[in-house]
Amino acid sequence: MRIVIIGSGNVATHLAFALKAAQMEVIQIWSNQYHNAVILANQVGAKAIHHLNEIDETADICILAVKDDAIAAVADQLAGFGGIVLHTSGSVNMDVFTSKVNDYGVFYPLQTFSKGKAVDFKVIPICIEAKDEHILKNIKQLAKQLSNTVVEVDSEKRQILHLAAVFACNFANHLYALSELLLKRNDLDLDLLRPLIMETAVKVQDAQPINVQTGPAIRNDEQTLKKHERLLSNEPQLLNIYQTLSESIKKMQK
Amino acid sequence: MRIVIIGSGNVATHLAFALKAAQMEVIQIWSNQYHNAVILANQVGAKAIHHLNEIDETADICILAVKDDAIAAVADQLAGFGGIVLHTSGSVNMDVFTSKVNDYGVFYPLQTFSKGKAVDFKVIPICIEAKDEHILKNIKQLAKQLSNTVVEVDSEKRQILHLAAVFACNFANHLYALSELLLKRNDLDLDLLRPLIMETAVKVQDAQPINVQTGPAIRNDEQTLKKHERLLSNEPQLLNIYQTLSESIKKMQK
Repeated sequence: MRIVIIGSGNVATHLAFALKAAQMEVIQIWSNQYHNAVILANQVGAKAIHHLNEIDETADICILAVKDDAIAAVADQLAGFGGIVLHTSGSVNMDVFTSKVNDYGVFYPLQTFSKGKAVDFKVIPICIEAKDEHILKNIKQLAKQLSNTVVEVDSEKRQILHLAAVFACNFANHLYALSELLLKRNDLDLDLLRPLIMETAVKVQDAQPINVQTGPAIRNDEQTLKKHERLLSNEPQLLNIYQTLSESIKKMQK
Repeated sequence: MRIVIIGSGNVATHLAFALKAAQMEVIQIWSNQYHNAVILANQVGAKAIHHLNEIDETADICILAVKDDAIAAVADQLAGFGGIVLHTSGSVNMDVFTSKVNDYGVFYPLQTFSKGKAVDFKVIPICIEAKDEHILKNIKQLAKQLSNTVVEVDSEKRQILHLAAVFACNFANHLYALSELLLKRNDLDLDLLRPLIMETAVKVQDAQPINVQTGPAIRNDEQTLKKHERLLSNEPQLLNIYQTLSESIKKMQK
């Protein structure tokens, strides 16, 4: 498969490397920051292009790994593309492509990517969707070369997945950040909590989170809850989060 | 070392196994539920006892792995104990032992324990504190046989650590649970998010959480934030958490 990648951010970068590793041919890369396209292109043996009208229209697939609100504008310039146009967004409906390009679909890798941090694509679920069955088959073929978990998910459910990922990933990371803030203010190091953070994630790999909940809220340990609230009396933002999440844990238990 | 364990819950169980594995002698176990003491005692070659007055007062250490609010009451009955009395709580001040027992301290393993789920004690930080230097030395000797990370932490800082652990562990797990709730209501499976949960925890093992924050809030992606709020319009509890944490992410960025 000959593939064009639009974008040079985290998703574009990790995808380009994974495609190359899977023996697929990334032929061109475009980015609104040309120098970033050059850097990435050099790493995967592709050619950086200055303008979207330079795209090789005979390529099999064009992957738009750009910001959500840029997808429509880029698609507007791909009317002549002969292959399949895909976006990689969790929250943008597939119909963003309607009446813009002929063959299209969605290729959403459910993972958090950071530059410079390698990930094993094989374990990343890829959620796919397509305009029709024929295109779906092609996207599935592509996805299966990268990952062991390829699932068909329509736009509506993909939005839910993306929202659930915000809770389980973005918000969880923010709690780690708040935790570190609290520790630093008291000359303590996050290293003391890092094993706990790992174990908390490991634990739910083969358990339901609701069944392994621990802590003062689930035990209805009012004494500790009050003690913690006192410790946070000068931190209104942290106190609010502490109370909101403790209440939510108690509610869920019922 | 000859050790008595009070309690038969998660901490008591994991501790008893770890002590045994480290070639220490767990001689007695007491629990307010005698049959649980018997089960655990049989597994580690100890003797279950019916009453606290049966404790072998010549043992080196007595570890109280009981509920926070039971520590004082148990300590009241250990006045004759000749060794060191320890509790394992993150939030109870060491002075709970003052004028109750002679030699005392704290032995707080910073981990989340679940029955039936093995943990590697070697990587668990153990926070210790003692009445005096001599006792501290003894506790340190015990702790170092179990873990590679032994740190002295006074009662005040231990409370902060415990509170920070509630954010990074208990609350993170609750977010996983909310995420699963949302998925289930839409016939989606948490399996799709499990690799993401792992990667989110792995990522902060050698990075600061604040530096690897992703998601719509940190990008100030108002379009996606609004979309998510609409998806949660019938879920006031989830919506409240979504808005509270998104605001907090934006604030922290500033």
